[in-house]
Amino acid sequence: MKVKAAVAYAAGKPLEVTTVDLDGPRAGEVLVEIKATGICHTDEFTRSGADPEGLFPVIFGHEGAGVVVDVGPGVTTLKKGDHVIPLYTPECRQCKSCLSRKTNLCTQIRATQGKGVMPDGTSRFSIGKEMIHHYMGCSTFSNFTVLPEIALAKIREDAPFDKVCYIGCGVTTGIGAVINTAKVEPGANVVVFGLGGIGLNVIQGARLAGANKIVGVDINPGRVKLAEAFGMTHFVNPKEVGGDLVAHLVNVTDGGADYSFECVGNVDLMRQALECCHRGWGVSVIIGVAGAGQEIKTRPFQLVTGRVWKGTAFGGARGRTDVPKIVDWYMDGKIKIDELITHQMPIERINDAFDLMHKGESIRSVAIF
Amino acid sequence: MKVKAAVAYAAGKPLEVTTVDLDGPRAGEVLVEIKATGICHTDEFTRSGADPEGLFPVIFGHEGAGVVVDVGPGVTTLKKGDHVIPLYTPECRQCKSCLSRKTNLCTQIRATQGKGVMPDGTSRFSIGKEMIHHYMGCSTFSNFTVLPEIALAKIREDAPFDKVCYIGCGVTTGIGAVINTAKVEPGANVVVFGLGGIGLNVIQGARLAGANKIVGVDINPGRVKLAEAFGMTHFVNPKEVGGDLVAHLVNVTDGGADYSFECVGNVDLMRQALECCHRGWGVSVIIGVAGAGQEIKTRPFQLVTGRVWKGTAFGGARGRTDVPKIVDWYMDGKIKIDELITHQMPIERINDAFDLMHKGESIRSVAIF
Repeated sequence: MKVKAAVAYAAGKPLEVTTVDLDGPRAGEVLVEIKATGICHTDEFTRSGADPEGLFPVIFGHEGAGVVVDVGPGVTTLKKGDHVIPLYTPECRQCKSCLSRKTNLCTQIRATQGKGVMPDGTSRFSIGKEMIHHYMGCSTFSNFTVLPEIALAKIREDAPFDKVCYIGCGVTTGIGAVINTAKVEPGANVVVFGLGGIGLNVIQGARLAGANKIVGVDINPGRVKLAEAFGMTHFVNPKEVGGDLVAHLVNVTDGGADYSFECVGNVDLMRQALECCHRGWGVSVIIGVAGAGQEIKTRPFQLVTGRVWKGTAFGGARGRTDVPKIVDWYMDGKIKIDELITHQMPIERINDAFDLMHKGESIRSVAIF
Repeated sequence: MKVKAAVAYAAGKPLEVTTVDLDGPRAGEVLVEIKATGICHTDEFTRSGADPEGLFPVIFGHEGAGVVVDVGPGVTTLKKGDHVIPLYTPECRQCKSCLSRKTNLCTQIRATQGKGVMPDGTSRFSIGKEMIHHYMGCSTFSNFTVLPEIALAKIREDAPFDKVCYIGCGVTTGIGAVINTAKVEPGANVVVFGLGGIGLNVIQGARLAGANKIVGVDINPGRVKLAEAFGMTHFVNPKEVGGDLVAHLVNVTDGGADYSFECVGNVDLMRQALECCHRGWGVSVIIGVAGAGQEIKTRPFQLVTGRVWKGTAFGGARGRTDVPKIVDWYMDGKIKIDELITHQMPIERINDAFDLMHKGESIRSVAIF
C-alpha cells in the first residue's frame, strides 16, 4: 500500500515527507494506522549523524499512538480496531530477559531491530526498489507502519492519540525510572538533574511515589514554574550556587539524596548525581544518553560507602503490561501530559519540530496525521 | 594499667612490641582482654604510609576476639566475662543510618574514630606523656584495649578466639557482601575477582546462598585447590585467556554474571567486574580498596542497559546483630575458617605477619596473646 511518511535519506539532512510503499503484515505482525507521534531527542540523535549505529534511508519516530487496521497470521492478542502504542522495547514474555523478572529489556527481536528490519530480516518499507529502514522497531513518522505483535501495547479507546503518544517514550521513561528502577518510597528526598521532558516526568513520578523533597537542578530558570506544577519543591541553579554543587545538594537534602536522576546525558552531571546521594544508601539512576564513547567516572569510595549507580531504559517498564496502566493514570488525572506537549503540527511540518527542539523552545512536539 | 602492645611510631616502620599505658573504661566504654587478632591488608595499608588519613603513633589491629574484663558507667548490654568481637563498624541502633534499615554504616562515633580517639575526644593509650592513637576504633594489637559498648559484638563462649577473630573483618566482609549487599539468590551465577582471603570468603558466601556457577578469577593458580574446597566451580586465569577477558567471562556464565565481586582493589578489575555482568540485571559489588585518588570508569551504556554498580563495607553487616550469627555458622560447620588461617604467631612476632603478607605466603595470619 501507499503511505505518507517522513523519510530521512541521509544523516544531517531534513526529513522529506513523501509517499512510501508499505508491505502488509506477515506472520506475527500487525499493521497500525498512526494517528499522532512525538518527536524525541533520540530521533534527533540519529538524524543528526551522532548515533554511530544510525542507518539510512530510514523512517524515524518511536513515540506514536494509533489503531490496528490488519493483523498477520498467528496474531492472537490484537485485532482490527484496537488502539495501540508502539513499543521500541517489546515484551515477548518468553525470552530469558522477560522471564527473569529482573529487567524489561526483552531480547526476542533485538538483533533485527538494531539492523533496522523486521524479525524475519526484511523491511516492510520501500520506495520503488530502494529498501527503507525501520527505526527502533517503530517508524511512527508514517501514517501506517508494521510492527511485531509483541511490540504493541493495547490501550483504552477513549485516550486521545495526540497526548498518549508521549507515553510511548518520554512519559514512561521518566515515571518508570522512579517507580520501576529506583523504586522511590514515600518520604524519600529526590534530586533531578535537568528539567526537560524527562526530568519533568521524573518529578511527577516522584510526586506520585510520595517523595518528600523533590529538588530540580537546571541552569535554565525558565522551567521552574512548570516544574513546580509537576511537584518540584526546591530549585537549584548551579550558576547561582557559590561553591561546590554536590555539597550544596547534600545540604538541601539533609545529608544527601535518597535517589537522584540524571536526565541530560552529560557524564559530568552523572558523577555529580551519584556523589550528591546519601552515604549508605543513595541510589543514582542514569536516564540521559551520553555521546558516543564518553565515560562516567568516580572514586570507588563513593560506592564502597553505600551509594548505588544504576541506569534505566524505557523506565524499566514492561511495555504491554505497564503502558496501558500509565494511560489509565493519565485518564484518571493522576499524571499530567497536556502541559508537556508544547507544540502540535501536521506531519508535513515535522522539520519544524526539530528546529523547536534545537532552539530549546519545545518540551514535546507532536505531529498529527 | 600497663599493657603489651605492638606500637607503630611512624609510617613505613616495623611495629615495636612494648609496654603501653591504658586508661580504664569511661562512660559507655568497655575494657576488653584481646586473646587473638588477625593481621589484615588494611592494617598494612595504613602502616605502609599509603593511607592518606593515617595517624601516628598508633596501635593497629581491627580483627580481634577477647573477653570483657571491666565496663564503664552506663554500660548495660555487656558484663565482665562476656566473649566479644570488636567492631570497626559499630552499631548504635539509634543514629539516622542505623534507623534507616538501608545501611550498616553507623555514624554515631564516626568523627572521633576517624581521628584515632574515643568518642569523648581522648585516647586511652599513652606511653608516658605521649598519646598513642586508637586505630579504626579497635586497636586489637594490644592485649588489652578499650572500646565503646556499641562497637562490641557479644558472641558464644565456646568459640575459639584464634579462629573467630577473623570474623571481625575478612570473613564478614566476604560473606556479608554476598548475603547482605548483593543478596545472591539460589541458582545465580557469580564471578569473583581475586582469590585472596576476601575472595575465598565471597566464594563460600556464594555457596551458602545456593549459587550455581561460582567462577574465580586470579592470575595465581596456586589458590585453585583451596578455592574449589570453598565452592568455586570454575577457574579463569586471565593470563591463559586468549582475547577479551570480559567476553570470556560472559561466555562462561551463559550471558554474564548475575553478581560479580571485586576483591583486589584494582580499578581496572572493577571495570571488568561490572562489564562481565549480565545485561539487564547483573550487579557488581566493589569490596577491594583502591589506592588513594584512583577512579573507576565505564560507559554509561553499561548501566543504562541494566547493570548495577555498588560497593560494600564490612559486608553490609550490622556488627552486633550479624557477627554473632556468623560465629554460629562457623561453630555449626556451615562456613570454614580454619583453612584460611595459614599462620599463627605470638604478638612478639607480629612483623613476621606483614612479611608473609608481602610475600603472598599467607591468607590470614593471626597473632596470639
